[in-house]
Amino acid sequence: MRTKGFKNVSELRQDLVSGDWVLIATGRGKRPHSFVKEKRLKLEQPISKCPFEDPQATGHGDPLLIYYGKGKSKKEWSLQVIKNKYPAFGPGDCSITHKEGPYTLMDGAGFHEIIITRDHYKHIHLLPIEKIEEIIKAYQERYLALMKQECVNYISIFHNHGREAGASVPHPHSQLIAFPIIPADIRRSLKGSKEFRKKHKRCVHCLMLKWEREEGRVIFQNEYFIVYAPFVPRTAFELRIFPRKHKSNFEKLTKTERKYLAEAVSTTLGKLYRGLKDPPYNFFIHTAPCDGKDYKFYHWHIEILPKTSIWAGFELGTGIEISTIEPEEVAKFLRKVK
Amino acid sequence: MRTKGFKNVSELRQDLVSGDWVLIATGRGKRPHSFVKEKRLKLEQPISKCPFEDPQATGHGDPLLIYYGKGKSKKEWSLQVIKNKYPAFGPGDCSITHKEGPYTLMDGAGFHEIIITRDHYKHIHLLPIEKIEEIIKAYQERYLALMKQECVNYISIFHNHGREAGASVPHPHSQLIAFPIIPADIRRSLKGSKEFRKKHKRCVHCLMLKWEREEGRVIFQNEYFIVYAPFVPRTAFELRIFPRKHKSNFEKLTKTERKYLAEAVSTTLGKLYRGLKDPPYNFFIHTAPCDGKDYKFYHWHIEILPKTSIWAGFELGTGIEISTIEPEEVAKFLRKVK
Repeated sequence: MRTKGFKNVSELRQDLVSGDWVLIATGRGKRPHSFVKEKRLKLEQPISKCPFEDPQATGHGDPLLIYYGKGKSKKEWSLQVIKNKYPAFGPGDCSITHKEGPYTLMDGAGFHEIIITRDHYKHIHLLPIEKIEEIIKAYQERYLALMKQECVNYISIFHNHGREAGASVPHPHSQLIAFPIIPADIRRSLKGSKEFRKKHKRCVHCLMLKWEREEGRVIFQNEYFIVYAPFVPRTAFELRIFPRKHKSNFEKLTKTERKYLAEAVSTTLGKLYRGLKDPPYNFFIHTAPCDGKDYKFYHWHIEILPKTSIWAGFELGTGIEISTIEPEEVAKFLRKVK
Repeated sequence: MRTKGFKNVSELRQDLVSGDWVLIATGRGKRPHSFVKEKRLKLEQPISKCPFEDPQATGHGDPLLIYYGKGKSKKEWSLQVIKNKYPAFGPGDCSITHKEGPYTLMDGAGFHEIIITRDHYKHIHLLPIEKIEEIIKAYQERYLALMKQECVNYISIFHNHGREAGASVPHPHSQLIAFPIIPADIRRSLKGSKEFRKKHKRCVHCLMLKWEREEGRVIFQNEYFIVYAPFVPRTAFELRIFPRKHKSNFEKLTKTERKYLAEAVSTTLGKLYRGLKDPPYNFFIHTAPCDGKDYKFYHWHIEILPKTSIWAGFELGTGIEISTIEPEEVAKFLRKVK
């Protein structure tokens, strides 16, 4: 039997869902505080030049969805969803594939929307819980509207914070991209979840949650959600938010669940913000596809990946992701952060 | 039939080997010149503080391999291979896996070496062809030595240039990591190649080469190697170097092939350097595993990925990679660069 902790320079851990191996290499003896960087790449834009400060004035067209502050005039919108001016997917025909030489092609048919909150400076980790609840509500409303559209079989909702995490406009915003294919990562995650269910008659994600709770890698939990530092992380300080009960579809969130999810998101991003001094990060929702098939075996969740390292030749050439801190330490550290 | 070029905002293209989809989104109408950045993040280190200027003086131990300049004294080494002081893999037992909860673990057993060329400033794209040939020879020698070691089933050789591409020490160096598992990306590439061979009785890579030649996406070729901008790229300006004939194993390169490979590497990296004004990049070798199994169906090659964008929430959440320029344009542009 292996005793806890490892003495070697590194340890390979196999992901339970994909079967892929990741590497935990703590050889340099990194402590949580070494992930705090005083110097971040600056991503600044004065309000006068911000395209999202008044999206209609900067030619974004009518909002697809708009929320107003309580008792406020039209001028004082609180959140709005607009079309992306530079979409990754747009109008097209997804009913046919084309051939070019040996290859199969398809129109990039779909939708690309931006969810903007009002304040130019208040990033999601600085917003009150009610505002985060509003964001989640907007994600859900747009998801529900787009899932019925043609050419929409998967909807990816994500948020980039900080230049190092790929954000190009500093005004806080999330994105929603709806498209016809089931992406590679989701396909593998679905396949792994389905096979595990078939073989072990249980949900692999529920099993992981149970084990993460027992092992003390939980950072926060409330009545409906649990946040933990996964035993097999993709990157240092990766965190995941899961519904505690087995649920396959993000878009079926109830009003009550939204409140609790907002609390979990607020606490998690707040801890990262204060603990690592405003790190750049990406988060995204992984949920069942909306292609009409049965995905009851899946368990939807949010993955939060602080940008703690750059993928270089090894990661790009092998797909093996390297984490330079043990998730146990991450959990211990973040639990203490207020 | 689809006519050449596409009118929509983007196009999905399916990789022939993995079956994964990538997105070509040229919506913003990017031209090759827009990938030229005048401002790169600086990665500088004075010679006096460089750990690789005199690796033995900085405690790296005896070289594992050393080449000298012609007719020069010991002081004037031309290339040396040393152990990485902060290895990703090291001593360990790979014959057993451990269990922790529902997870499978393994010691990070293996080797991590650094291949250093003498000049502090001359990056690989600035070296004469003979010096590049020397680097390839060192890759091959160390590969041949390590493939016989226990716990070595795959060897990844890669090179990072520039801070944005993850290089942390500016002195030019490549890395070699040898380890017991077959990494996820290689596993998928092998599986795809094997299945294609079984179904179509031919090598999928040979078919691609033939088609890339016909379609004019070739940037350079000599008697033994061909360089092209792939129709389904992982990122803008991705380039691949393939042996023209079907060969599965990098380590079986002949002396003559090494010369021609050095010419192909020199030309390719030189064109990128001059065309995009010293972009950061990663390159790595994909070759058959050295676990003793039969991989005759595989076709080894080098992938070169200039760092033209940052993976953000969409790429991380879906695995769909986005390229913002058509490879045809890349090929046209780079062919013209001297």
